[in-house]
Amino acid sequence: MLSVSEAIGLLLNDCKRLVEGEEIDLVSSLGRSLAQDIIAPIDVPPADNSAMDGYAFRHAEWPGAEKAIPLSQRITAGSVPRALSPGTAARIFTGAEVPEGADTVVMQEHCEASENSVQIKKLPVFGANIRPRGQDIGAGQKILSAGHRLRPQDMGLLASQGIGEVSVYRRLKVAILSTGDELAEPGSKIRPGQIYNSNRFTMHGQLSAWGFDIVDMGVAQDDPAVIRETFSRAADEADVILSSGGVSVGEEDHVKDVVESLGAIDLWRIAIKPGKPFAFGQVLGTPFLGLPGNPVSVFVTLLIIGRPYLFACQGIADTALHPHQQRALFDKKGSAREDYLRVRSTADGLELFTSQSSGVLFSTSWGDGLVRQKVGEDISRGGLLEYIPYAVLN
Amino acid sequence: MLSVSEAIGLLLNDCKRLVEGEEIDLVSSLGRSLAQDIIAPIDVPPADNSAMDGYAFRHAEWPGAEKAIPLSQRITAGSVPRALSPGTAARIFTGAEVPEGADTVVMQEHCEASENSVQIKKLPVFGANIRPRGQDIGAGQKILSAGHRLRPQDMGLLASQGIGEVSVYRRLKVAILSTGDELAEPGSKIRPGQIYNSNRFTMHGQLSAWGFDIVDMGVAQDDPAVIRETFSRAADEADVILSSGGVSVGEEDHVKDVVESLGAIDLWRIAIKPGKPFAFGQVLGTPFLGLPGNPVSVFVTLLIIGRPYLFACQGIADTALHPHQQRALFDKKGSAREDYLRVRSTADGLELFTSQSSGVLFSTSWGDGLVRQKVGEDISRGGLLEYIPYAVLN
Repeated sequence: MLSVSEAIGLLLNDCKRLVEGEEIDLVSSLGRSLAQDIIAPIDVPPADNSAMDGYAFRHAEWPGAEKAIPLSQRITAGSVPRALSPGTAARIFTGAEVPEGADTVVMQEHCEASENSVQIKKLPVFGANIRPRGQDIGAGQKILSAGHRLRPQDMGLLASQGIGEVSVYRRLKVAILSTGDELAEPGSKIRPGQIYNSNRFTMHGQLSAWGFDIVDMGVAQDDPAVIRETFSRAADEADVILSSGGVSVGEEDHVKDVVESLGAIDLWRIAIKPGKPFAFGQVLGTPFLGLPGNPVSVFVTLLIIGRPYLFACQGIADTALHPHQQRALFDKKGSAREDYLRVRSTADGLELFTSQSSGVLFSTSWGDGLVRQKVGEDISRGGLLEYIPYAVLN
Repeated sequence: MLSVSEAIGLLLNDCKRLVEGEEIDLVSSLGRSLAQDIIAPIDVPPADNSAMDGYAFRHAEWPGAEKAIPLSQRITAGSVPRALSPGTAARIFTGAEVPEGADTVVMQEHCEASENSVQIKKLPVFGANIRPRGQDIGAGQKILSAGHRLRPQDMGLLASQGIGEVSVYRRLKVAILSTGDELAEPGSKIRPGQIYNSNRFTMHGQLSAWGFDIVDMGVAQDDPAVIRETFSRAADEADVILSSGGVSVGEEDHVKDVVESLGAIDLWRIAIKPGKPFAFGQVLGTPFLGLPGNPVSVFVTLLIIGRPYLFACQGIADTALHPHQQRALFDKKGSAREDYLRVRSTADGLELFTSQSSGVLFSTSWGDGLVRQKVGEDISRGGLLEYIPYAVLN
């Protein structure tokens, strides 16, 4: 039996980025992964500017609190100042460029001003209230790395550099399919013996959250010819094939034979709970991940094992997880498999959902994250747990 | 000065849901907020079914390990079984419905089978390997509440209930605008005195991440007539108006006068760092949030103060944060304002970005979350901090 980290390691060894780059507008770049490093083209801010509404002056020229200094110009944000005439001050506003010759800005609350002059009642320290050129970023500095997934603040950062288009990897195309004659589509009437297909929607939602393009193959009947045709089409249209169900030692599972005849398949026994069995292979050269059939197993293996693999195929560099520490509000014995418990965070710590059965999909909706319980480690109330919020897996 | 929680409380007191419901396909429902409670229409699973590939039989009829039981039927997932004839067993596969009369399933690994009969070598306990009807969910149970934002696993859960369409609130329309003659669009050539407009992109990205519809008003010049026309149009087209910059005591800030003349505006001093000033009001009846002009202040106030307000307008029920505990790898004195520090999580704890200046947008891209430092509380290396990953704010 493979440990979870061994399984992820094998997958990552075997995979490579499957997508090429494309140029897109910055405004549409949320969630996309950078195809190249971003080197800052400019200093930010581009010039020394004022951190306050106030007056720019030469610190050494301060005549004392009672003497007025004549005002020689008025500098608003976006305007271009002239060099400051000796013995004068400039009215200046937040964000406006500090004129050559001025070395200090005094905030207006510390001044008494008339139309043509200002008295600086309280002298600030030399250099005060000036944000120096390049304070945020110096030109030439690497600010984001290839493989980084863009977040809102990264879009702001790129904009602040004047970058209006970015080179990102095109979206990974992932085909999803389910197999099983017992599966009915939601919205349709169920026949005796059928259950509704939930895995398709869990997978669809999760792949959408990750920003992939989805090639939805629907449900393939448990018939070798149909499964063969569906897998061939998926291999043709997608970069990666993801299936749920249909891979076990059962006589009615035709997926294994079909994938083997079209490419290759390894059945893995991974020490993850919920989770096994897990299949990895290729169909006509297109990588294939076969998730289990149980709804919770699908969700957990997709998050824990599928995610790093799919992210790597998408060219995303960092797929590591840093679980947070949260206190346990429950006890639980360890087992021979790494257990991903469905929990809910409260102000006091983490609550465990009553049923951790892999058939109980409600356990995943009830909570807001997973606890990783290592092999053979018991959990005691009050102890610190490795908590992974679902949100950080998106 | 208002505390952060006072400010959020005032905003939430003043707001109401601004969007009506609509029916959409489940498959497109990721991130949408439910317009009504979801009551389970069916039991899941709908009938007792087998947790294993094996044989279904009557526990009391076990003839011992050496005697064969005749096989009377073969039940695959999705097929409808007949009642089990007395004295017989049924071949059964994972997920298949357990026939009436059978009370136990034995896994195939504990059997020796021929085509027509099976010897059960190891008797499981009564009721073993059967997933009972309604184990996951009982019909009539509330499974999701109005105002819940749908995640991938919720889509799976709804699908498992046969629900193919959901009633969700339409997307909130948020107008974003920036003011300032010094702002240049990324991709364009910058003129002396100008800076690139980053706030528009940070806001655009964050509102997209939240699933809102964005009405992008661009940059309004620092001219009362232009600002008035832009605000009027925003009020007409959007449910909420969000601006950055332009609200302070500066002479060049026309936003306050314009909003006052079209509606109402309150300038708030909130004890948040980075953050002040913050404006709240309405323009021709449309709520208005005025964020500061500094890039980091925009990002932090949007996440911490704007988010709960906008979520409430969208009809999202739960906007509370449960910060996680992580260890500090740094020391920092407390201040008179609640400080949202830009940090990065590592295996050992949280690192602080060197500059916590509100002008340094790079601090937000460098890290993966915020630490909430309460008013007047010092941070010491090794202490437990309130950590909020950016991901959980999405």
